[in-house]
Amino acid sequence: MGKVTATYLVHDKKGNLNKKAEDIALGLTVGSWTNLPQLEKDQLEKHKGTVESVTELESDSAADQYLGSSRTKGLLKISYPAANFSPDLPAILTTVFGKLSLDGEIKLVDLELGKSLAQQFPGPKFGVDGIREKLDVYNRPLVMSIFKGVLGKDLEFFKEQLRQQSLGGVDLVKDDEILFENPLTPFEERITAAKQVLSETETITGEKTLYAVNLTGRSRNLRDKARRAVELGANALLFNVLSYGPDILQELAEDKEISVPIMAHPALAGAAGSSALYGISYSVLLGKILRWSGADLGLFPSPYGSVALKREEALGISNALTEESAVHRAAFPVPSAGIHPGLVPQLFSDFGINSVINAGGGIHGHPDGAAGGARAFRQAVDAAVSGVSLDVAALTNKELGTALELWGGVAAK
Amino acid sequence: MGKVTATYLVHDKKGNLNKKAEDIALGLTVGSWTNLPQLEKDQLEKHKGTVESVTELESDSAADQYLGSSRTKGLLKISYPAANFSPDLPAILTTVFGKLSLDGEIKLVDLELGKSLAQQFPGPKFGVDGIREKLDVYNRPLVMSIFKGVLGKDLEFFKEQLRQQSLGGVDLVKDDEILFENPLTPFEERITAAKQVLSETETITGEKTLYAVNLTGRSRNLRDKARRAVELGANALLFNVLSYGPDILQELAEDKEISVPIMAHPALAGAAGSSALYGISYSVLLGKILRWSGADLGLFPSPYGSVALKREEALGISNALTEESAVHRAAFPVPSAGIHPGLVPQLFSDFGINSVINAGGGIHGHPDGAAGGARAFRQAVDAAVSGVSLDVAALTNKELGTALELWGGVAAK
Repeated sequence: MGKVTATYLVHDKKGNLNKKAEDIALGLTVGSWTNLPQLEKDQLEKHKGTVESVTELESDSAADQYLGSSRTKGLLKISYPAANFSPDLPAILTTVFGKLSLDGEIKLVDLELGKSLAQQFPGPKFGVDGIREKLDVYNRPLVMSIFKGVLGKDLEFFKEQLRQQSLGGVDLVKDDEILFENPLTPFEERITAAKQVLSETETITGEKTLYAVNLTGRSRNLRDKARRAVELGANALLFNVLSYGPDILQELAEDKEISVPIMAHPALAGAAGSSALYGISYSVLLGKILRWSGADLGLFPSPYGSVALKREEALGISNALTEESAVHRAAFPVPSAGIHPGLVPQLFSDFGINSVINAGGGIHGHPDGAAGGARAFRQAVDAAVSGVSLDVAALTNKELGTALELWGGVAAK
Repeated sequence: MGKVTATYLVHDKKGNLNKKAEDIALGLTVGSWTNLPQLEKDQLEKHKGTVESVTELESDSAADQYLGSSRTKGLLKISYPAANFSPDLPAILTTVFGKLSLDGEIKLVDLELGKSLAQQFPGPKFGVDGIREKLDVYNRPLVMSIFKGVLGKDLEFFKEQLRQQSLGGVDLVKDDEILFENPLTPFEERITAAKQVLSETETITGEKTLYAVNLTGRSRNLRDKARRAVELGANALLFNVLSYGPDILQELAEDKEISVPIMAHPALAGAAGSSALYGISYSVLLGKILRWSGADLGLFPSPYGSVALKREEALGISNALTEESAVHRAAFPVPSAGIHPGLVPQLFSDFGINSVINAGGGIHGHPDGAAGGARAFRQAVDAAVSGVSLDVAALTNKELGTALELWGGVAAK
């Protein structure tokens, strides 16, 4: 059945990283070892955790000062036999970072599943290739936009906003993650309205648009609600996975009747991901875990907006969603927040062709409205893919020119 | 329908806390306000977030130094109309700390539900009073112990360990949280074996013992698994709630057929709770949210062991679990980790009569075995409740004397 291997970043008080690693490897598995009788050792051998490596890092004086004592910084890599837990994420997370998460300055920075264990997880049902097939778009990053200000507005407002975004050429539109079940734009009515609008715009543009409706409510109802959404013609789902738990995402991904891509929103991720000393790294939290659980698209803050991750964190998530795997399809990385057309070359350079350019204000705030905003993004994407500078592209692309005037252009580093 | 009120601790770069609070209150609800036409204002008024208070705190030079710039530290209290979300925790958490959790140095330190909203949550099904009734113990803190080293051992080992703990007089015994479904001690067999052992020990001691079996596996199976556990005679459940999500705990608590107390384990809580700058305070994470969701007992690290919380954090959790509420029963606080009999007066002084004294090594490491360890705890509890010092009590209580010799005694501060 294999094993799971966790890597921890520690800022340790006691200074003996080898002992700390050994204490963790035993403490989270068989408890103790050295003084056990041979008979018990034989019995427990297959359950014993293993220290894979211990790497001392250069000490971090800023952290030491903040923590008020000199610490030994290092990476501890420890593996846990799969015989110890059931093959589900709640069991794995409880094993590798349950009690341990409470034990001082320790951060879970990587998590690897052995192949047989990885095969217990579905991964994306569609992923990059499946979504490209649905959209029939293969040669560029996708463009996505976000509904703005639907809360408190009626279905006509919703429909008109969707129409404009789709006419402008976005590939995907998502609900705002804080739009829940409500009397003005109920879940089922948003789906049927969107289906009608998007079939109209497709006849005009010749392009498909996926609308990710926000799947919300009590856990027990999600599966049926998602199935019902698909029956009604929904073509994608948005899901606030961390406010439910990754196992719930996995259940949705495993359900064959929920035959549409699932977009994972990073809501709440900052609670565990923000600290350099504690918690779970974003590449694990928003990358690996969400891909294993079956997210087809994973949103995260880009390094460039007002709500921003560090560049290496954003790239770490993107890498985790897309890196070569013999088991799981690649998921689309969706760097988000504060994106305007001028950032497209940088995003393309960072995240590559298999990524999604996602904007809210950068679409809706365009002087020519959401349709103009969407066109400006498509123009910027075409320029980036062709290696044409935005300034040059703007000469023959009006909406892009307007966007660059408003927000400026950023050359890729 | 009321509102939810969140309090955030911020270390803000820009120095204008009032503006920051206003930006949050609008940004997480209606988006913008000042420049809206009156018609839209009328339409959106009931969805608009409200800044309840802004309190600047003394600046924290250690944090400033660590963060590399001078920050304005403060508490922002913001309320969100319940009209904006469905009355479930995933929606509430996404609303108050979804995107916001990713926005720099911000920590969710308090969360309050208006009464009508609070009534949407079950709270503990049994709580302090219900568990006392089950045990017929009213006049002292309860004593609990933890199985040790069951992983890789067979059912006979499990039964003998349970017997010793119960004979010594513990009120509750819990599985290790890292004991999952396994061939040597399967879930259902642990339940039936425990039922038999505990009915035998009850005839000897005249006292009941609750055994909290670890409810694990895939989310979709938990309800049926818990119901089956109850049918088989389980009298309590242990649940790693944060590796699933609080809504799953709530579903278990709401199920009338799951008619046994649920003990919430704090596994993973450190990921969001450890940092002073980011995440969610323990009083919210392990206190309020778990009580609303229906935990009857809430475990957390005591301030006194090797894995320890700050004293004010531990007291904050305990207070959140027990404070007067017109809506929800009080849950038992269970300060844990590194507890030995010598700490009982301090724990009694901190957490009061309605708490659970919980030990692993402090029970099993007793020279007279687990039964002796349990007796030492019961003796220490009786002494603390009667206001007798442990030293005096040890004169007539052999096991307590042995424990104090080994671990020492700590007078309550």
